[in-house]
Amino acid sequence: MSREAAARSVVSFVPATIANVGPGFDVLGLALDGAGDQVCARISDSRSGGQVTIASIEGCGGRLPLEAEENTAGIAAIHTLRRAGLDTRVELEITKGLPIGSGLGGSAASAVAAAFAVNLLVGSPLRKEELIEPCIEAEAAVAGRHADNVAPALLGGLILVRSTDPLDLVRVPLPGGLRVVVVTPAHELNTRDAREALPGSVPLATMVRQSAQLAALVSACYSGDLELLSESLVDPVVTPVRLELVPGGREAVDAAQGAGALGASLSGSGPSVFAICHSSAVAQKVAGCMQAAFLNAGLESKVLISSADNPGARRVR
Amino acid sequence: MSREAAARSVVSFVPATIANVGPGFDVLGLALDGAGDQVCARISDSRSGGQVTIASIEGCGGRLPLEAEENTAGIAAIHTLRRAGLDTRVELEITKGLPIGSGLGGSAASAVAAAFAVNLLVGSPLRKEELIEPCIEAEAAVAGRHADNVAPALLGGLILVRSTDPLDLVRVPLPGGLRVVVVTPAHELNTRDAREALPGSVPLATMVRQSAQLAALVSACYSGDLELLSESLVDPVVTPVRLELVPGGREAVDAAQGAGALGASLSGSGPSVFAICHSSAVAQKVAGCMQAAFLNAGLESKVLISSADNPGARRVR
Repeated sequence: MSREAAARSVVSFVPATIANVGPGFDVLGLALDGAGDQVCARISDSRSGGQVTIASIEGCGGRLPLEAEENTAGIAAIHTLRRAGLDTRVELEITKGLPIGSGLGGSAASAVAAAFAVNLLVGSPLRKEELIEPCIEAEAAVAGRHADNVAPALLGGLILVRSTDPLDLVRVPLPGGLRVVVVTPAHELNTRDAREALPGSVPLATMVRQSAQLAALVSACYSGDLELLSESLVDPVVTPVRLELVPGGREAVDAAQGAGALGASLSGSGPSVFAICHSSAVAQKVAGCMQAAFLNAGLESKVLISSADNPGARRVR
Repeated sequence: MSREAAARSVVSFVPATIANVGPGFDVLGLALDGAGDQVCARISDSRSGGQVTIASIEGCGGRLPLEAEENTAGIAAIHTLRRAGLDTRVELEITKGLPIGSGLGGSAASAVAAAFAVNLLVGSPLRKEELIEPCIEAEAAVAGRHADNVAPALLGGLILVRSTDPLDLVRVPLPGGLRVVVVTPAHELNTRDAREALPGSVPLATMVRQSAQLAALVSACYSGDLELLSESLVDPVVTPVRLELVPGGREAVDAAQGAGALGASLSGSGPSVFAICHSSAVAQKVAGCMQAAFLNAGLESKVLISSADNPGARRVR
């Protein structure tokens, strides 16, 4: 590759994320490692098409739109350039490592990868945190206005979204040595359907329990109290409803807990189920039991075992 | 006092508490200092009346029941003895330092003072944490089943009530040097009325905001991020409704913030309003501005300025 070509393209990698961590519906997200989406952004010399064009998408079986305005990567790129006040023309090549509709934050990963790569490509006019808003715009187009995938995908670690308007993100430390198991069954769930299954309102007493659970979870992360972490990972509101939509989902959660996980819940809106474990040995056992639970419901599945504390978006080339 | 008399009586002091701290409706409570209730518990030789009798209540203008089964101190004493499996007969003398219906946790203070004194009187058969349940029973009789007054009243500090059934309390550390201003206007509010003003249910999006606020507040307490503490003290659900019931309440909150408080909200169900400040000088100024706001609404008021990190129940004799 010539020097000029190198300066004219950036490749970024952004990991899978777990949104809705336990009781943290819409507000608590965790970056994973070992799987993610990649975006190559190039300065485009073409004068045809919009400011951002998508040259190719690999790994989605042709199921994602190539129109930039309809694709989360494209939308994030457009909003990143708009926010930077630039009319630079950019072409994207997207490589999906995350399956569509799996609950691993695939749409967010592509959005963040595009925003991150495009910002670097044009000389980093925006700070990292300023890339969140363009990515939220992208998420809003496919899955509602929430930041609990895009924030950890960009920033890494465990992120509490205190507010999206104005944006306020809180990094929550994680106790050391935790392992995260994510099992993705071969069952596609539409994020919109999963949203429609939610109650429009909840009793005040339920709000109280849910807020106490989330606050206790945050406390456990700071104090390293794993027993409290275990108790407080239970979500009384959203997860029970959504687990009904995933064949074998409730059984997988129960199997994880039976096999020694600190806690287990849906990843995002599912169908992936995650478990947090205090050692690699337990994580291996938990993964096997969760897969068996899904198989028992007639579903093959894939496993990702990751450390809990991971970096987010990074440049790979 | 003879040695025998000393061994046969215990006097306890229990401080005022702020329940419903910011977004922590029903689950987050803070112990104050400088004001509280006192209970003297004595072994009773009388054979008449119930197992627990109340000899006197000072400081309430005759407005609290002397029947043990109808008084939070009496109920807490009865349940403490029951839990300990003792048929010891006990007489209580109650000295109210906290005004009735002020939002300073007066009913909880009396209950905790009685449970604490009675347990000591009978040789401490129960651990401190085991006194919470008898006090929750007492609170339930007058103000609903909640522990965010009794827990900090007994244990001190800032306490998150993750669950009352089973009971699970989480101590949350406080940033150093904070001062708490509590202004109590001469306006009595019935706790039951304040409960009835609450919505029966809330939109899911409101639950999400509220839980994120509470989680962020806990995070700020651990990290010492005072800006985050300030932002996250705002309660989107309960406080706005209840401030309407307190003449000058909204203005007092606004005045506190205008005078440099990190945040302000109702204490318990009101009418007291508290403000958290980062220095004594600011606390003094804030207190004056809050009093002026109440005066503007036609209400005299009293001020309590306290450190934020205080012990709870203690034996004074």
